[in-house]
Amino acid sequence: MKDKLKVDLNCDLGESFGPWKMGDDAAILPYISSVNIACGFHAGDPSTMLNTIELAQKYDVHIGAHPGFYDREGFGRREIKMSPSEVYALVIYQVGALQACATAKGAVLHHVKPHGALYNMAAKEASLAAAIVQAVVDVDPSLILYGLSGSALVAESEKKGLRVYHEVFADRTYQPDGSLTPRTASDAVIKNSDQAIEQVLHMLLEGKVTSVTGTAVTMQADTICLHGDNPAAVTFAATIAQALNDHDIRIR
Amino acid sequence: MKDKLKVDLNCDLGESFGPWKMGDDAAILPYISSVNIACGFHAGDPSTMLNTIELAQKYDVHIGAHPGFYDREGFGRREIKMSPSEVYALVIYQVGALQACATAKGAVLHHVKPHGALYNMAAKEASLAAAIVQAVVDVDPSLILYGLSGSALVAESEKKGLRVYHEVFADRTYQPDGSLTPRTASDAVIKNSDQAIEQVLHMLLEGKVTSVTGTAVTMQADTICLHGDNPAAVTFAATIAQALNDHDIRIR
Amino acid sequence: MKDKLKVDLNCDLGESFGPWKMGDDAAILPYISSVNIACGFHAGDPSTMLNTIELAQKYDVHIGAHPGFYDREGFGRREIKMSPSEVYALVIYQVGALQACATAKGAVLHHVKPHGALYNMAAKEASLAAAIVQAVVDVDPSLILYGLSGSALVAESEKKGLRVYHEVFADRTYQPDGSLTPRTASDAVIKNSDQAIEQVLHMLLEGKVTSVTGTAVTMQADTICLHGDNPAAVTFAATIAQALNDHDIRIR
Amino acid sequence: MKDKLKVDLNCDLGESFGPWKMGDDAAILPYISSVNIACGFHAGDPSTMLNTIELAQKYDVHIGAHPGFYDREGFGRREIKMSPSEVYALVIYQVGALQACATAKGAVLHHVKPHGALYNMAAKEASLAAAIVQAVVDVDPSLILYGLSGSALVAESEKKGLRVYHEVFADRTYQPDGSLTPRTASDAVIKNSDQAIEQVLHMLLEGKVTSVTGTAVTMQADTICLHGDNPAAVTFAATIAQALNDHDIRIR
Repeated sequence: MKDKLKVDLNCDLGESFGPWKMGDDAAILPYISSVNIACGFHAGDPSTMLNTIELAQKYDVHIGAHPGFYDREGFGRREIKMSPSEVYALVIYQVGALQACATAKGAVLHHVKPHGALYNMAAKEASLAAAIVQAVVDVDPSLILYGLSGSALVAESEKKGLRVYHEVFADRTYQPDGSLTPRTASDAVIKNSDQAIEQVLHMLLEGKVTSVTGTAVTMQADTICLHGDNPAAVTFAATIAQALNDHDIRIR
Repeated sequence: MKDKLKVDLNCDLGESFGPWKMGDDAAILPYISSVNIACGFHAGDPSTMLNTIELAQKYDVHIGAHPGFYDREGFGRREIKMSPSEVYALVIYQVGALQACATAKGAVLHHVKPHGALYNMAAKEASLAAAIVQAVVDVDPSLILYGLSGSALVAESEKKGLRVYHEVFADRTYQPDGSLTPRTASDAVIKNSDQAIEQVLHMLLEGKVTSVTGTAVTMQADTICLHGDNPAAVTFAATIAQALNDHDIRIR
Repeated sequence: MKDKLKVDLNCDLGESFGPWKMGDDAAILPYISSVNIACGFHAGDPSTMLNTIELAQKYDVHIGAHPGFYDREGFGRREIKMSPSEVYALVIYQVGALQACATAKGAVLHHVKPHGALYNMAAKEASLAAAIVQAVVDVDPSLILYGLSGSALVAESEKKGLRVYHEVFADRTYQPDGSLTPRTASDAVIKNSDQAIEQVLHMLLEGKVTSVTGTAVTMQADTICLHGDNPAAVTFAATIAQALNDHDIRIR
Repeated sequence: MKDKLKVDLNCDLGESFGPWKMGDDAAILPYISSVNIACGFHAGDPSTMLNTIELAQKYDVHIGAHPGFYDREGFGRREIKMSPSEVYALVIYQVGALQACATAKGAVLHHVKPHGALYNMAAKEASLAAAIVQAVVDVDPSLILYGLSGSALVAESEKKGLRVYHEVFADRTYQPDGSLTPRTASDAVIKNSDQAIEQVLHMLLEGKVTSVTGTAVTMQADTICLHGDNPAAVTFAATIAQALNDHDIRIR
């Protein structure tokens, strides 16, 4: 992913559960190049996983596993203090379940992206990050791990020789140390669409992001996380896809 | 498995869950040749699955997935009316999860045996049986399915060209039609150890079982189901292993 | 409920779960007189239960517990073979949980209506029906049980002296024996709104329903089940409420 | 509980789950005066709750609800970051479920003791403590809350006028600030039985505990937590009961 004229656009998919629907998966698919499919712990269920893979195949996007904490009520967004060995097992289980679903549909698993609180905790805690990386390596070392750009998860992947995509966010602001501004801060989210696209282009073309204090921070951007759970998000996905195209940046 | 001088002895393993222990897995392992490991739906959890595979590897037994209904309180023994497509997804998910655990430990998955109510329902209902067989075929067609000897599950496997082991029970009586006497009947279980071993030898050496009415019924026996959850069961396992050895019947 | 000029209109509410929303509870509330709130087993969760009670209080409707099988993926609509003593415990647990939520909000629990497969099984199997009735009696004998008109559940309630509402359906056809036409039959559902209202009025004013074969069947109607999960259902609720009003039948 | 010659001995009970057994509830019951019964989230299930209440009634001990995080695999011992309003709902739900079980058995609920990580988090975080206290007050203000002696949970109870028992541990050492020595420290647990009893007597007779640094810390002891999950624990329970009796300290 050294070539800055290419980037992956990813989106979380398959977040329905049993009788409950979430998101409009089909609406976002035309604009993205890879999907992260919930594996039944924070969202999704076996039937939804199979159906989502089938849908993803129609749009020819890369299929990834999106393992999370076993916490449906909290949608995997609550921090749960688990030991690294428990997290290791948790990831193997969920990646394996999704991999079998992919195999059954004639698809090949491309990547793994931890979800929610697991993603955020693994960005900071090296022991959790190492457990996740080891789990992916032990299930299939040809998989790519998606992690927050510059995070512990990325560092552990590189240490163990696992391919990794540095993930950035179009609509989130950054701190001078390269971390995301916490959602609790008033300036955490970029609501202006033009500004979000400008940030993305700056990352892709210059390898930098302007932090909330105005300083420039080095920021590798292999994949951009988009959301597909509301009409505005789908419109934004279309806009960013167009902007990338206008700047000769190939999606995927 | 045409050679009647070989037989597989299988046992359900890895039925602990979180902080709760069940069974003495290590005690039964010396006497058996294959294990069916719970996959987290009716019993087991990701860490227990990994640990159980490791234990099975020490005894060099074949490792199988033991998918069941999502029903921990009922231990997968309650009938749940699910559609064939739901059962298909359920089996893929659980087999995939266990397969990934096996891969992570450097082991290879050998077979799949449905658990409890799923096993019993699939023995009778062709649509459920077909769903299970298709799930196994779609995940990995080199796997072997274990099903009740003479059941719909075995028939569907043979129809789809999936390798299958006819499973028999040492300590259960049979009806004239070859089905197991329901547990609700007073003569369902053979409590006398000698009689149970005699029944097994009759199956293996003659390919027949004497039903409760005294008629002889053809009965293919590729694998025998043993229990390991109490000291008497372990003693019985040792006894049957000895009896097979005495008759030059090789285990596995 | 001997007075035929009064009837209760009930609707299932609080069927969201964690991050997943279901139904538009506020839209149906103006037209009904009692609600059945999911208790966390097939749908609902502690926070949703509290919020739904608060919403119900605004519309001054009777609050009921809506216990179901522990089966979120299947939304409590799959038959699960549980023993009567297990069902007894299941109902006590869920009714108690909702009762505490009501108490915390200053509300009083009015009734219990089993959900989905539990409701249907209890309509036919006397042992399950008896277990449910006993559970309600043992938690609070002043509660009213809602059961299918003419069912085993109603019979067991009357046998044990528990107050019971005979429930009828506006949009379902009936068999000559008074049972509902199974959903698998093509004529199970009444799609014509006028016909549905005519059926309800016939039940309320004459105490009878015309079965699919044309015969008249005696049918007590203390409460009518409505649905609120789509705009057409809400429109129908408004229409039936108007029709009842036009015939001087008081709701509640 | 001003009278220092009385003390309550409490123990966690009903921690089996579905087919899995935990603890020997009957063995510890003769030595204690109150029990905390798991409510189905971290352990226990509806049938187990009813059976445990029945068992507790035979020994005439006070019955308490023992709500915990929804985390069976982790037995409620993993910290889960939930909001105070979520914890409020969680406690109401579980206390209500157990209260209904008690009512069904003709028993009366006496107290509430949060379990595991919820107990520990509520000892330190005032917002969680306040949520738990409010939940108990809103379900039944006559209940007693059990909390770590000197903790935020106790402080919030007193602030809201809820009766509270200061809980102490016989076999855990204390820090100079009155908090428990974390289990990660090598001197966290008192393994010597005599020393544990001496600590208890010191608390009861002098209202003080000697911290790990040798300083005396004021420590109110209304109830002592015992364990019943192994034979040594039961022996210790018998020993401490005898010691209390020898010093004319009445249990309960």
